[in-house]
Amino acid sequence: RIRELFDEYNIVDMSDLVEQLQIEDVLFVFKMLKKNVTAEIFSYLTYDKQEELIEAFTGPEIQSMLDNLYSDDIVDFMEEMPANVVKRVLQNAKPNQRAEINKLLNYREDSCGSIMNTNYITLKRYESVLESIQRLRKLKNIDRALGYAYITDSKRQLIGSLSLKQLLYAEDNELIEDIMDTDLIVVKTDDDQEKAAQLIRKYDISTIPVVNDEGKIAGAITYDDILDVMEEETTEDIHKMSAITPTDKPYLETGVFAMYKHRIVWLLVLMIGATFTGNILLIFEDHLKTVAYLSVFIPMLMDAAGNAGNQSSTMITRALALGEVHLTDMLKIWFKEIRVAFLCGLTMGIVNFFRVIIFMGMVDVQTSIVVSVTVMCTVMVAKLIGCTLPMVAEKLGFDPAVMAGPLITTLVDVVALLIYLGLASVFLL
Amino acid sequence: RIRELFDEYNIVDMSDLVEQLQIEDVLFVFKMLKKNVTAEIFSYLTYDKQEELIEAFTGPEIQSMLDNLYSDDIVDFMEEMPANVVKRVLQNAKPNQRAEINKLLNYREDSCGSIMNTNYITLKRYESVLESIQRLRKLKNIDRALGYAYITDSKRQLIGSLSLKQLLYAEDNELIEDIMDTDLIVVKTDDDQEKAAQLIRKYDISTIPVVNDEGKIAGAITYDDILDVMEEETTEDIHKMSAITPTDKPYLETGVFAMYKHRIVWLLVLMIGATFTGNILLIFEDHLKTVAYLSVFIPMLMDAAGNAGNQSSTMITRALALGEVHLTDMLKIWFKEIRVAFLCGLTMGIVNFFRVIIFMGMVDVQTSIVVSVTVMCTVMVAKLIGCTLPMVAEKLGFDPAVMAGPLITTLVDVVALLIYLGLASVFLL
Ligand SMILES: [Mg+2]
Ligand SMILES: [Mg+2]
Ligand SMILES: [Mg+2]
Ligand SMILES: [Mg+2]
Ligand SMILES: [Mg+2]
Ligand SMILES: [Mg+2]
Ligand SMILES: [Mg+2]
Ligand SMILES: [Mg+2]
Ligand SMILES: [Mg+2]
Ligand SMILES: [Mg+2]
Ligand SMILES: [Mg+2]
Ligand SMILES: [Mg+2]
Ligand SMILES: [Mg+2]
Repeated sequence: RIRELFDEYNIVDMSDLVEQLQIEDVLFVFKMLKKNVTAEIFSYLTYDKQEELIEAFTGPEIQSMLDNLYSDDIVDFMEEMPANVVKRVLQNAKPNQRAEINKLLNYREDSCGSIMNTNYITLKRYESVLESIQRLRKLKNIDRALGYAYITDSKRQLIGSLSLKQLLYAEDNELIEDIMDTDLIVVKTDDDQEKAAQLIRKYDISTIPVVNDEGKIAGAITYDDILDVMEEETTEDIHKMSAITPTDKPYLETGVFAMYKHRIVWLLVLMIGATFTGNILLIFEDHLKTVAYLSVFIPMLMDAAGNAGNQSSTMITRALALGEVHLTDMLKIWFKEIRVAFLCGLTMGIVNFFRVIIFMGMVDVQTSIVVSVTVMCTVMVAKLIGCTLPMVAEKLGFDPAVMAGPLITTLVDVVALLIYLGLASVFLL
Repeated sequence: RIRELFDEYNIVDMSDLVEQLQIEDVLFVFKMLKKNVTAEIFSYLTYDKQEELIEAFTGPEIQSMLDNLYSDDIVDFMEEMPANVVKRVLQNAKPNQRAEINKLLNYREDSCGSIMNTNYITLKRYESVLESIQRLRKLKNIDRALGYAYITDSKRQLIGSLSLKQLLYAEDNELIEDIMDTDLIVVKTDDDQEKAAQLIRKYDISTIPVVNDEGKIAGAITYDDILDVMEEETTEDIHKMSAITPTDKPYLETGVFAMYKHRIVWLLVLMIGATFTGNILLIFEDHLKTVAYLSVFIPMLMDAAGNAGNQSSTMITRALALGEVHLTDMLKIWFKEIRVAFLCGLTMGIVNFFRVIIFMGMVDVQTSIVVSVTVMCTVMVAKLIGCTLPMVAEKLGFDPAVMAGPLITTLVDVVALLIYLGLASVFLL
């Protein structure tokens, strides 16, 4: 009954249901379902639920769960479990499984090794299509295998790949060697996961093989995990651009204190950085008192500078992340940004003049002109700083995303104030 | 010779090479290669090169290209071609092809219909696995088919799906009906492409079927195009957050004037919005002159407010985009943000007091205290505004990304100044 009911549901929706149940009910439901279905549901549960379940499982239940999970999903939850749960899982794993899990857990976080799947299929070079298909159909857990098969030589060096689609459509008597793809796109176990994402996106492949330092196949990464990697890495960049040190937990699952920690660092750094702007204003304190309305335009100037600089730095940072521009394009970028900056600066200066005349009638024309020229120069300089900083960061091996948001704001503030007060002392005193 | 040389290369790398060649050389190379290979290379070329090539092709060459391209790739380049090229292509298409292309071109931009592929395979419900495989192998252009097959009833209503992997591993005599998946995840032709991306990501499927209003299958969308959709949509959001009206062209391919247009709009809107801050300062002009050092802290206060507000609005906007939070979570979000805001505000206020004492010795203690209390209040209020605005935008059907960046800055600037000058008039006059 339950099994039939659950047959109508998608695994992912089922796991949403299971997530709501009490542990005893989950155990009851799991007993009704096929082992491969429960394993798949398990892989979609939250870490908290997974932990509760492992603690409630009997030894044999843990082992059957491990037998039916993809290797990457095992690693995924093991990384998040407390030590006693990890220990309990490893104790109940078969010896070769234990060795495998330990090996996978040892790869650096965010490396290709840490997200790869070891449930790939190996085909034999000199086997025919029919023989291969017949052999595969007899393998245990074959429905858990990936959509790609890999062909290795006698030294386990990767020499070819074949999608199951190609295998299905090939003639029965063709040799694997003759139909396999030899133009392989691969990553290494210690490459960053972002590299796998970029290659999968560039070459439109669903699965990318992962090889170790000696070129032997170690596993493969699939598109669905790459989708998650892409979202993660982009979230990381977006947070960095907004002066947040990145978290990898979803918003509602992050605690208040963790959130505080991730936000306060940059807020403090930037506030202390603002001591520069404060000291510039202290130096020009007399001007601010002497020249009427001078301080009135400071907020607008700083915001205009910040916005203009941010536009450029964001565009370049995102283009770098997508691989649309490279360090070698620096001159092209400058030439483009200089022209855009000139157009933006000129428009802003002119519009500002009329804005002040229309909305702030008491300000004299001379001051309006100085403010407008400042807007023009500031916007131009801010844009140039904005397009240069992310490239410099990339060149020096820092993260352009950090340069894009937080740091640029403080820098262009200082520049804006210096231009403004410099021009004011020359023309308004 | 050329064919052998090219066999070693991946199609995507070949297209990078072909992109560099003169048109005559491209035509020469294309004559050496298989038709399906040239079609695939063609789909990876830039729009400029595609246009040149279509103009240089003979009628039959165009037709053979169309025969070998995936339908979504045809639509992709046709959307970007000038009218005369589109006309030339349609003239050389076979009648049924022409009707198909015209239909696909009619779907709204960014709809599921506009990115779907019509080269899906249909299986028969009562056919056996062996019969199905044998029938598929005989189909023309079968290697261009997708990795998923769909099963429909007599009214072309979608009733099941089957991956080619499942087909390959099933027993020869099993019926398609018995092995197909019936828990279908589908989108409609006029759904937004973002919906397809979210479903593919949630359900970890490689291909999602697209049905029309009557539930009849119209096509399917594949993971590789979804990867591109995700990057596009995220770039759009990132640009909006940085006050840029989104473009869909890569940075280096966008002209200076187009870039100017995409940036100047928000710069102007925000500058005119800054009239508010200007006018607030005009009102408090006398205070600024009377109280020593009052204006010195304005830049720092405004930046702190902007940064604090931006952190919250960015986190919420991204969480909304990823579906991590929903409108119904509003109370949870407020409760969390209030606590985080309190911690951040308190820390900022305390650190600011010591910052002023240490680095800006001439400022009197009373002013430092007022500034510190202002920092504290401002950071707290900015964070609450920051988390509320994106939710309000979502609720009203506006884009939260626009609220996240540009609009919030101006709003929190006003709030910061009002708090500062209000406290100053009470305690420092
Ligand atoms: Mg996973
Ligand atoms: Mg991991
Ligand atoms: Mg792609
Ligand atoms: Mg996986
Ligand atoms: Mg990373
Ligand atoms: Mg990164
Ligand atoms: Mg495409
Ligand atoms: Mg399109
Ligand atoms: Mg997923
Ligand atoms: Mg496609
Ligand atoms: Mg869109
Ligand atoms: Mg969007
Ligand atoms: Mg600001």
